[in-house]
Amino acid sequence: MADNNVKELTTSDAPVKARGLEGVVALESALSSIDGQKGELIYRGYNINDLAEEASFEEVVHLLWNGTLPTQDEFETLRSELQSERALPAPVMDILRNVPDDAHPMAVLRTAVSSLALYDEEADTMEPDANRRKAVRILAQIPTVIAAFDRLRKGKTPVSPLDHESMAHNFLYMLNGEKPGKAAADIFDICLVLHADHGLNASTFTSRVIGSTLSDMYSAVAGATGALKGKLHGGANREVMRMLLDIDEKGADPAAYLRERLEAGEKVMGFGHRVYKTMDPRAAILRDMVEELSEEEGEMKWYEYSMAVMDTMKQETGIDPNVDFFSASTYYQLGLDPDLFTPIFVLSRTAGWTAHLIEQWADNRLIRPRAQYVGDRDRTFVPIEGR
Amino acid sequence: MADNNVKELTTSDAPVKARGLEGVVALESALSSIDGQKGELIYRGYNINDLAEEASFEEVVHLLWNGTLPTQDEFETLRSELQSERALPAPVMDILRNVPDDAHPMAVLRTAVSSLALYDEEADTMEPDANRRKAVRILAQIPTVIAAFDRLRKGKTPVSPLDHESMAHNFLYMLNGEKPGKAAADIFDICLVLHADHGLNASTFTSRVIGSTLSDMYSAVAGATGALKGKLHGGANREVMRMLLDIDEKGADPAAYLRERLEAGEKVMGFGHRVYKTMDPRAAILRDMVEELSEEEGEMKWYEYSMAVMDTMKQETGIDPNVDFFSASTYYQLGLDPDLFTPIFVLSRTAGWTAHLIEQWADNRLIRPRAQYVGDRDRTFVPIEGR
Repeated sequence: MADNNVKELTTSDAPVKARGLEGVVALESALSSIDGQKGELIYRGYNINDLAEEASFEEVVHLLWNGTLPTQDEFETLRSELQSERALPAPVMDILRNVPDDAHPMAVLRTAVSSLALYDEEADTMEPDANRRKAVRILAQIPTVIAAFDRLRKGKTPVSPLDHESMAHNFLYMLNGEKPGKAAADIFDICLVLHADHGLNASTFTSRVIGSTLSDMYSAVAGATGALKGKLHGGANREVMRMLLDIDEKGADPAAYLRERLEAGEKVMGFGHRVYKTMDPRAAILRDMVEELSEEEGEMKWYEYSMAVMDTMKQETGIDPNVDFFSASTYYQLGLDPDLFTPIFVLSRTAGWTAHLIEQWADNRLIRPRAQYVGDRDRTFVPIEGR
Repeated sequence: MADNNVKELTTSDAPVKARGLEGVVALESALSSIDGQKGELIYRGYNINDLAEEASFEEVVHLLWNGTLPTQDEFETLRSELQSERALPAPVMDILRNVPDDAHPMAVLRTAVSSLALYDEEADTMEPDANRRKAVRILAQIPTVIAAFDRLRKGKTPVSPLDHESMAHNFLYMLNGEKPGKAAADIFDICLVLHADHGLNASTFTSRVIGSTLSDMYSAVAGATGALKGKLHGGANREVMRMLLDIDEKGADPAAYLRERLEAGEKVMGFGHRVYKTMDPRAAILRDMVEELSEEEGEMKWYEYSMAVMDTMKQETGIDPNVDFFSASTYYQLGLDPDLFTPIFVLSRTAGWTAHLIEQWADNRLIRPRAQYVGDRDRTFVPIEGR
């Protein structure tokens, strides 16, 4: 993005119209930056490739919230804060017990996040320290919600969170009821790092719009969860996996299958990005990870389908895959149900949403664009008897 | 707003920066238009003064959703649809029974709206007819949520909704457990009409941003509820009433009280508007209504405090009151607890939110502005041991 080429609108300028707000800078942020031409993503100045390879998710959370990578002491402090807030209030667990087994996991998560506010005495306290404590709580409790819901709908007993281990390890443990292998926990941790923040995407923007009214963090995170549920946003990796599963079930040739969909004018999820004009760097990291995972497990088909779809899509349309395309098969290879992919995206992106809220509130301004009225004018009211 | 003076941004233009998106047109809408200079508000071409005086809330809902005021038959159909959807699913009522008595009513409402999706089989069906049915359900059920919550926290039994009568009448009936007087129901109906839509305010914008990801109506309305909770948005009328109650308790002179607050640099809620440069037309309608209500009840003090604060504010700052300023004393005179003012705002604005979602989905485009990155660059990653 040509940051040095931005024209600031002054109050004397005519209103500017931009459908979907494309090309409009709504705010300044020091959190993450995307260079769409170079295919580069940084969090607070650090390249995503370095962070994915060398930093844990908790280090990245510290970085996003505070602007610096943690020292060993800071890291231990944050990690133990997060560990100590993992358990859910009993009434929230009751809500999870009562939801229908076939409920949409994102609707459940949105409801649970919203309900957590009811049991947080600081929910409506807007002091920065209270907001930081809430960020810790929300981030710590979301994995517990997802894992408990998934076990309950499968007729299993929820597993109490560990008071030690990383978020990635603890989540897989709560989900499966057994210690994850080191490779699985490490790969899952990298996935969390990759999805932690990404500029002003629609859900992050949602969280800042809500936060800009000086509403509370639970409102903003629940709203952002609702935005991420949309199939044009976080719902995409679930759709990608549906396609790969469909290819597998039908025993179809992936390239022919894709061409058919394109000819039918169907949208193929997991490709293209409003910002990246080349390959999403997160997609590249995940692609290598899927390959590695597949080789370890001796099951190459998901990787092969993905590569064939990717190559055909490139040939036919010139469009590169985005992060959703390869996170689908990564999560599937980790044994996660496809309808948990988006909740896991929430788990990770909550780091970014809460960091954006902290940033928003440090220098708040209501976010309120205009609509251009294109409707009728000067209609004469006729009472109902005369219509 | 100078609609004919809007400059459309093209892809070859440099990005435009506008903090808070002030002066930016994000989308076209045929729903409502505000002329800030003239102090005029229209819904689909009809002046708000005519609608407030002559149309019921249900007629306005039909107008917003469909573009035309209903014929008698259309009116009866919509009214009976709304009447038949008022009851809550038992598990949602259970959630309300279990929330703490001192819970924030907006947090409860946000959670309840989110949870209603779990019991709506059409929650994730995006066909226009299904979305219209969901709009009916959400609008019909929100009053039941608010009334049931308020009764439960007061140790009373929730009152089952009527299967007849208007939304305004039924809400007051469910809240108080007795038939409202005709004047009360009529005035409340007018309040609902006045708050039904208002351009692209922060909560309506939130609902469209969430909807633009092709997420569902419950996600969007729950998110918008979260936005309206903020004290810079829907929370304002509650703050106004707090001020009036404070004046009353202290036996203060309202003019002196206001001057003191201004001198202390405190923000006074209920004044000024980003769009109106003269008096909000809804404030004028409500001002007359408060006066009438006060005379009927023989209790003029809230009206008098309000007028004194208004006049002093005008003298000292030149700023006019907005809709929140007079809705506070109107609702209070109707016997509603101050912390229900914002939930009632939700009740009313849900008409607009759902209409905006229907409009958004008729020609959807993802709403995604950019942030300008102002953070560090090219930082070298140092592993935790070396920090």
